[in-house]
Amino acid sequence: MGNADYAYPSTNMRCAHQVAIPPPQPFFESLKSSLKETFFPDDPLRQFKNQPKSKRFILALQYIFPILEWGPRYSFEFLKADLVAGITIACLAIPQGISYAKLANLPPILGLYSSFVPPLVYAMMGSSRDLAVGTVAVASLLTASMLGGEVNANENPKLYLHLAFTATFFAGIFQASLGILRLGFLVDFLSHATIVGFMAGAATVVCLQQLKGILGLVNFTHKTDLVSVMTSVFQQTHKWRWESVVLGCCFLFYLILTKHLSKKRPKLFWISAMAPLTSVILGSLLVYLTHAEKHGVQVIGHLKKGLNPPSFEYLVFGSEYLSLTLKTGIVTGIIALAEGIAVGRSFAMFKNYHIDGNKEMIAFGMMNLAGSCTSCYLTTGPFSRSAVNFNAGCKTAVSNIVMAMAVMITLLLLTPLFHYTPIVVLSSIIIAAMLGLIDYEAAIHLFHVDKFDFIICMSAYIGVVFGSVEIGLVIAVAISLLRVLLFIARPRTFVLGNLPDSMIYRGVEQYPVANNVPGVLILAIGSPIYFANSSYLRERISRWVDEEEDKLKSSEETSLQYVILDMSSVGNIDTSGISLLEELKKKLERRGLKLVLANPDAEVMKKLNKSKFIELLGHEWICLTVGEAVGACNFMLHSCKPKPKTDENETWDNNV
Amino acid sequence: MGNADYAYPSTNMRCAHQVAIPPPQPFFESLKSSLKETFFPDDPLRQFKNQPKSKRFILALQYIFPILEWGPRYSFEFLKADLVAGITIACLAIPQGISYAKLANLPPILGLYSSFVPPLVYAMMGSSRDLAVGTVAVASLLTASMLGGEVNANENPKLYLHLAFTATFFAGIFQASLGILRLGFLVDFLSHATIVGFMAGAATVVCLQQLKGILGLVNFTHKTDLVSVMTSVFQQTHKWRWESVVLGCCFLFYLILTKHLSKKRPKLFWISAMAPLTSVILGSLLVYLTHAEKHGVQVIGHLKKGLNPPSFEYLVFGSEYLSLTLKTGIVTGIIALAEGIAVGRSFAMFKNYHIDGNKEMIAFGMMNLAGSCTSCYLTTGPFSRSAVNFNAGCKTAVSNIVMAMAVMITLLLLTPLFHYTPIVVLSSIIIAAMLGLIDYEAAIHLFHVDKFDFIICMSAYIGVVFGSVEIGLVIAVAISLLRVLLFIARPRTFVLGNLPDSMIYRGVEQYPVANNVPGVLILAIGSPIYFANSSYLRERISRWVDEEEDKLKSSEETSLQYVILDMSSVGNIDTSGISLLEELKKKLERRGLKLVLANPDAEVMKKLNKSKFIELLGHEWICLTVGEAVGACNFMLHSCKPKPKTDENETWDNNV
Repeated sequence: MGNADYAYPSTNMRCAHQVAIPPPQPFFESLKSSLKETFFPDDPLRQFKNQPKSKRFILALQYIFPILEWGPRYSFEFLKADLVAGITIACLAIPQGISYAKLANLPPILGLYSSFVPPLVYAMMGSSRDLAVGTVAVASLLTASMLGGEVNANENPKLYLHLAFTATFFAGIFQASLGILRLGFLVDFLSHATIVGFMAGAATVVCLQQLKGILGLVNFTHKTDLVSVMTSVFQQTHKWRWESVVLGCCFLFYLILTKHLSKKRPKLFWISAMAPLTSVILGSLLVYLTHAEKHGVQVIGHLKKGLNPPSFEYLVFGSEYLSLTLKTGIVTGIIALAEGIAVGRSFAMFKNYHIDGNKEMIAFGMMNLAGSCTSCYLTTGPFSRSAVNFNAGCKTAVSNIVMAMAVMITLLLLTPLFHYTPIVVLSSIIIAAMLGLIDYEAAIHLFHVDKFDFIICMSAYIGVVFGSVEIGLVIAVAISLLRVLLFIARPRTFVLGNLPDSMIYRGVEQYPVANNVPGVLILAIGSPIYFANSSYLRERISRWVDEEEDKLKSSEETSLQYVILDMSSVGNIDTSGISLLEELKKKLERRGLKLVLANPDAEVMKKLNKSKFIELLGHEWICLTVGEAVGACNFMLHSCKPKPKTDENETWDNNV
Repeated sequence: MGNADYAYPSTNMRCAHQVAIPPPQPFFESLKSSLKETFFPDDPLRQFKNQPKSKRFILALQYIFPILEWGPRYSFEFLKADLVAGITIACLAIPQGISYAKLANLPPILGLYSSFVPPLVYAMMGSSRDLAVGTVAVASLLTASMLGGEVNANENPKLYLHLAFTATFFAGIFQASLGILRLGFLVDFLSHATIVGFMAGAATVVCLQQLKGILGLVNFTHKTDLVSVMTSVFQQTHKWRWESVVLGCCFLFYLILTKHLSKKRPKLFWISAMAPLTSVILGSLLVYLTHAEKHGVQVIGHLKKGLNPPSFEYLVFGSEYLSLTLKTGIVTGIIALAEGIAVGRSFAMFKNYHIDGNKEMIAFGMMNLAGSCTSCYLTTGPFSRSAVNFNAGCKTAVSNIVMAMAVMITLLLLTPLFHYTPIVVLSSIIIAAMLGLIDYEAAIHLFHVDKFDFIICMSAYIGVVFGSVEIGLVIAVAISLLRVLLFIARPRTFVLGNLPDSMIYRGVEQYPVANNVPGVLILAIGSPIYFANSSYLRERISRWVDEEEDKLKSSEETSLQYVILDMSSVGNIDTSGISLLEELKKKLERRGLKLVLANPDAEVMKKLNKSKFIELLGHEWICLTVGEAVGACNFMLHSCKPKPKTDENETWDNNV
């Protein structure tokens, strides 16, 4: 047995074309090219090639600070557009900033601080023209739930504040280092379905949290899941304040109405953009005039005048809270990145320019690093604000600078005006913003197109709503990865048949017209052959052969003599896979069958060659196409036919 | 733009063949078939089809207890062979059992108990004919290191013993439920490379532990890593006992010599199989005659006479140690399974019979459950013992029954004989057995064939030797999974060209003779298009198009007009992947290029159809083969040629 060939005439060229074995590549060269493909798929250094040194320096500066690239081309036309857009987003940014800071259990003024420094940093370093920088609801909520689990914000506000700065610092470090280490692709593991479900879940949770403000409750649970919140709400029915509820519902109705209007007539986007600010002004006036703050309507209270104080000295690196801040920083950092980059990419696609994910990460990281030292907490590119920016016709990141200036003026002069702003208005603003994030249409689309994606989406949603934000995220990512692993662990194998009047072979299930070739079983394997699937493939291929033999036995056709494996889709193979092929060859030979491979690609051929499998099988049994492999088998079948039957049987028996 | 087609004549049949859209399948039917493929790939219920009820009952009994199937056919010839094999493995089992129990810090008698009940259970339920059941070194060491981390075996031997029974109980439950739930494929995630490295590492660690016995030390570190052991050894140089060292080296030399001899002449396998027992007898005699136990040579001491006492009452389910025993049970259980199943499969392949992995798991599980109630600890099918069984010519699992009987006689009558057995002899037996597990040739083979597998193997080895057994395992599995994820996250994309004088298109890198088609870029994608790679593919495909356009610009050939994506290897697509295709189509159209798909398979067509992408692209732009796609493009190119140049340019501009 072993290498002994069959009792066939041995022609060297059974197939018309030979499958090439690629020349051996030096180890370090192939390592280098595969590392490059993994970490530099976009080849960012291409523009530096063949340039003099001085030019390279300028290009490098422009690479780090894109403003140096587009700045010189900046025109008055652009400025006009950016001014309008910047003022519009400032109107949204101020109330939203205050609301989200409340959501994070941080002093409201931090929301204003966070709309001042980070946008300036992003304007220098970011490559998106449409992104408007600011705090976001989900990351704020995450900060509150993660830090709040260990430190109570009401009992120990100072420590809580310092931990929030530290978490922002770590988030910045993490984001920047992801970008510098070219690990941006980690964000891709948050699939579209995960994000749809996660965002909807987070929006639901955020809305639930607003029940505190709407109902005018003073005490509230620190947990975020539906059950805890509902229990907390309905245990305090006697403390509900009708004044607060009425005010909240009115403003919510007003906000949703303006939003609806803007959606119907995109030209009127400014109505919806101004609505939060007008709500704040109206609400504050109302409270000021009616003294409602003495009748159960909570107000923001005193806001300190002045620009961001430095906060570098407050960063806490002591070991007691290190793991807490590190964990919070990494989780909020990656969530913020995912949102910011997805938003940046979407608008870049609209306007047909390119965004470099890794560069964006560095910009986000630097912006949060700078923020953590200037009394800001985590910022990113929120969808709502960026969409308003885009609709307002922004041209460049200058709109962020305009917004920062508007916030600066507010900080310097206008903070006392927010004293009487009712918290219930802020809650309404948050709820109105969040409702847009519950994208049930996308979920329905997922259900129609891809059930597995729908499951991922729903598990993210349910995990967030009934568990916690982190649980939902972990479940969704785990299921997404499971899908990828399942694809490899249970690859599709299917029988190919010949399409009539052609040399084309396709799956008989997809193309019922395809005909089986007598005496030959053609199997296609749908994934690389790795350790994770070699046992499965062993079982599955045996079963295919068994079934085919059973079928042929009952129909008394030509008995099975060849098994052709179509390797076109087998992108790679490891040593477990090679053992599988060796075993398969032995097993088939014991049953009197010959194994033939069709179209293995370069990587597979290289490994088969190194492991001497090609020698073992015979290079002439590796064909370029399925058609040629069938041709070779047919040739052998016919040249063997004239032999006496007994002779052939003996050959089989020898092999058993 | 949008759906507006190009200024091309619209023929409905541009390709010779149409790509079929499979008919929509009801959701539950497709779910059922994919669940079946995932959990029942071997279709174990096939034999039950079309059988009367009584027959089904018998088949079911035979399925659970394979002995009922082969028992009636059992012959006297078989019995003779099994008798010889059974007695041979008993000679190995007795000293090995005592040694491994010492390794697990358990009373030596447990090693004998564990060679009595579990083999009997396996003989009823197991489907391997060659597996010899017993304890193994790696699982023993794991038990010691995991349980020993929390409970000191010397200070609290009773609790430690009870925890070991409980861990065995959980291991049995875990193994059996893996089998019942058809989750046997989880074991496949321990790749061949992982097992090679892990086993070699564990063998190294076990040998290091034997330094205690060889050097005659009384105190020894409880850690297993190289650094701790070496520190412990060299801190006690003054306590080394030369008597012990001399004795150990002599027996080690003898054992290795006989092993070497058996390897050279397979007929003499019994010499190596008897060597441990003869070592034990010689060693005991020597100690008895010279009273060496009073001169620093440690001996086993008193062993209780009698069969396994019941131990069900000792199982500890209290919450204090629950997580410890559960963790130990699961880890040792999966390691034991991996070894047992790999061994069973290897020998089954030699003798050409089939082993059902899930059924084996149930058998292993039941055997350990029974064992945990009868004073046994974790057992599986060790390689060394099974190889001796195989070489001794065993025919069925009856050899296990014979071994169990031999051990029973030993337990009833011969235990006093082991009183003077020196521990150093047991250490020599373990070392000699372990040296065979360090398969450096396999590691060299991995290095030559697959560098990534070699890295996995080495990291398992280094992790085990310098960290701990669990660390090594986790690292190796994580790297293996990373490889699978990397395959999906960074799929290969390559340019195809036309092989001269054929309709065959292959990668130009593998086949340098392949020619580019003017005006057409043909890209093959090497993996399913999932969330994990859709961003990467977006970047990479743009880069291919850029590079191709740059190349064409400099050479002044026909400008690029078509991009054909060969989807043959794209086994599946999710909603992120569909968005990628939609974006790609838009992007290409903006640059005046047309997207064409070649050979998407059934699953992909189904999803493209559901998401309306086929309508968007036009069904006529999806071709069955790359050749036909090129034909369609060429037809369009030529029928457009006669048009005035300006006209065509205008068309492009309209699309920008």
